[in-house]
Amino acid sequence: MTDAMKSPLLTDLYQLTMLQGYLEDDMREEAVFEFSVRKMPENRGFFMAAGLESVLDFLEQARFEPAELDYLASTKRFSKKLIDYLADFRFTGIVEAMPEGSLFFPDEPILRVVAPIGDAQLVESRVINLLHLQSLLASKAARSVLVTAGRAKLIDFGLRRAHGAEAGLYAARSSFIAGFDGTATVLAEYLYGIPAFGTMAHSFIEAHRDEKNAFLRFAFANPGIVTLLVDTYDTLRGTRHVVEISEELRRKGIPVRGIRLDSGDLAELAKKTRRILDDGGLRDAQIFASGNIDEYAILDLFSRGAPITGFGVGTKMDTSADAPYLDCAYKLMEYAGRPKLKNSEGKATWPGRKQVWRLCRGGKMIADRLTVEGDLQEGKPLLRRYMKGGMRLEQPEPLADIRVRAAGELASLPEHLRKLEDSPPYPVEISNRLKQMKVDIEKEIASVEKQ
Amino acid sequence: MTDAMKSPLLTDLYQLTMLQGYLEDDMREEAVFEFSVRKMPENRGFFMAAGLESVLDFLEQARFEPAELDYLASTKRFSKKLIDYLADFRFTGIVEAMPEGSLFFPDEPILRVVAPIGDAQLVESRVINLLHLQSLLASKAARSVLVTAGRAKLIDFGLRRAHGAEAGLYAARSSFIAGFDGTATVLAEYLYGIPAFGTMAHSFIEAHRDEKNAFLRFAFANPGIVTLLVDTYDTLRGTRHVVEISEELRRKGIPVRGIRLDSGDLAELAKKTRRILDDGGLRDAQIFASGNIDEYAILDLFSRGAPITGFGVGTKMDTSADAPYLDCAYKLMEYAGRPKLKNSEGKATWPGRKQVWRLCRGGKMIADRLTVEGDLQEGKPLLRRYMKGGMRLEQPEPLADIRVRAAGELASLPEHLRKLEDSPPYPVEISNRLKQMKVDIEKEIASVEKQ
Repeated sequence: MTDAMKSPLLTDLYQLTMLQGYLEDDMREEAVFEFSVRKMPENRGFFMAAGLESVLDFLEQARFEPAELDYLASTKRFSKKLIDYLADFRFTGIVEAMPEGSLFFPDEPILRVVAPIGDAQLVESRVINLLHLQSLLASKAARSVLVTAGRAKLIDFGLRRAHGAEAGLYAARSSFIAGFDGTATVLAEYLYGIPAFGTMAHSFIEAHRDEKNAFLRFAFANPGIVTLLVDTYDTLRGTRHVVEISEELRRKGIPVRGIRLDSGDLAELAKKTRRILDDGGLRDAQIFASGNIDEYAILDLFSRGAPITGFGVGTKMDTSADAPYLDCAYKLMEYAGRPKLKNSEGKATWPGRKQVWRLCRGGKMIADRLTVEGDLQEGKPLLRRYMKGGMRLEQPEPLADIRVRAAGELASLPEHLRKLEDSPPYPVEISNRLKQMKVDIEKEIASVEKQ
Repeated sequence: MTDAMKSPLLTDLYQLTMLQGYLEDDMREEAVFEFSVRKMPENRGFFMAAGLESVLDFLEQARFEPAELDYLASTKRFSKKLIDYLADFRFTGIVEAMPEGSLFFPDEPILRVVAPIGDAQLVESRVINLLHLQSLLASKAARSVLVTAGRAKLIDFGLRRAHGAEAGLYAARSSFIAGFDGTATVLAEYLYGIPAFGTMAHSFIEAHRDEKNAFLRFAFANPGIVTLLVDTYDTLRGTRHVVEISEELRRKGIPVRGIRLDSGDLAELAKKTRRILDDGGLRDAQIFASGNIDEYAILDLFSRGAPITGFGVGTKMDTSADAPYLDCAYKLMEYAGRPKLKNSEGKATWPGRKQVWRLCRGGKMIADRLTVEGDLQEGKPLLRRYMKGGMRLEQPEPLADIRVRAAGELASLPEHLRKLEDSPPYPVEISNRLKQMKVDIEKEIASVEKQ
């Protein structure tokens, strides 16, 4: 059975027709492809890398199923030679990358694939698909983490409007890497060990005789996690109902953890409900807010003094609504030992195998330098090898470690890039050798391609 | 093994804790939930429904695996009663819906689930996730179809920046429903029978000695599908190279189908390359354009007289970039025979089981009326039954039939809603009985919930 998340058929048709071309001419020499993002979206200052683990999984496991091969043969597009090649296909290449949770900037490669050219292209579509989505989501989630600055819990609430199953899962994982505290998505707890959180829905209240009764019945059934949704009919009255039942619950040993606000003016309602809870002896009760939350809403709510202790961040993060895609590419940098270059208008690239060197001072990032690989520079090189001969060189990195790295990276981000609005870009210098390499290749292309 | 696209664990934690509450109190009576979109995004005039088939598949197949149940038990959040219930869980409810490819408008339900309340909630997160994504994508794709009006082929090119595997597949399927001619995604051809199209990538050109050589080698290996990418170094020179090799290919019986433009001023380049192709005897060669294409770009290119015969529509469609989510909800409308209502600020709903009646005149849609189910009106009722007792009532509808329906719906759309800019909303009237039902419930809530 085809598993869409694993099948190498999740690729663009041209990858197969080009592979057919390479096979026909026995072009199996080593190609180098690098994944990078060309431009920073508006109002953004950095990217956070995520998705490497899933890329390594995909490359290790990619196999064509017999039924998939039968289908390919049935299309009459492909030679027996290609079908036989795919039947035996195993990814045998090298992967070098920045670890997940790293911050990066435009033009910096975060992943390099080195493999026979047809193989490196066969996996291109899915490699981009995985890295793009997860880096997009981690970069978006990191902004909520920065503006919250530890003042409240952040929980991913976005599954329902994430773009499909995989987007929902990766929203949970990427936001957890970026510093979120958990997710509402149960499958993400099961698969990744990300703590799952949850409250209750309006329907639960509506299905009961009245709100107080609904609160009580929920608490009796779920005594450890009593966070009560108070806005179904009227937020302040709902909060008074919470206070009214809290004594009965206390007698039964059930603590009220908090309330959830999901509509209206959240800053005003947080202040008013805080007073009701405090006056009712529920000083420890948390106020959790959801509904249209993103980094801008969080900043606004804190600037208005809202005593909110947790946010459910949903749709706008899970779809990266203000920048729903990154202008990324996976480009050929070298073939058979020769650096390569694309010259298309507005899409030019830096050629060759590259390294990114990061300079820090006093715990803060100062500048990056993009160099030809092996051209040693001051600072720390960011890309390292993760896979060779199609096999991982080490066990998957624990999510907890990735999270620690991401927190360290965010802590070292220059002050002006921590803001939500546009700011001067982080400096990424291009080394002289790299500039020279580009000039040399442009000359070579000009001589070969002249009319 | 857990399959994320099928597992009922792909849900929000509160669905399980609420189910635990319902089970504890033996609340298993029938609930009615309806899925609708609350608001039209800016510059949009209609929605197109998609995702029903995947919802029916999910509901028919949803089962908890033993390992998933073990995990749930290990969290200590759940009673043995709940775990036992989930072990036996089968969806046994009713599904009523608008068929895929239908046009719909804010507040109109496109899918109704009738099931024991805990079950209807357990599946909520995934039902929304599936319907939201696919209706979002079909609605977006339909706009390119409308502005193209048959003047060019439309191919989905967006897999790499779609939000994950499932989003990539559903982008192919939803855009095909809306009227696209095919997709670049091979797995979508395999799984859904959507015709796959493809050209070649810049890397193929770069890996060869020179561009002409690359064109020839590609054509020899793929004689049936020779569309050549001309912008790797210089679009006009690349096009002249196509002309130069065409004679050799013709002698070998290989037709040049066309060229692909992927950068620069596409309108100007299309005109200039058309002239080069025509002068070179390639009058039948198609000009295919890609790179940042969406409905606005298509409209602009045609308004500038670009002789483009095909578009690869990618990222902006696959992410619905200008409106990356819909403000949708799956709301409790009835429990145990009593209509229900949520009153939260800005999120009020129409209560009860509803039907949508559509009035057409002279082949054009005039107005819809939202009514209480069973309140017969003029026109055509749009929701009908697809599942009972958890079983489909008929075979899955062939994609070709859905496509014909969608084309008919788009043809009947009032003229002003075919435009890309904001226009007066399509009239959706609320029937008097529905208004009265709402007033009655509000009164009832007020009496029960008063302090």
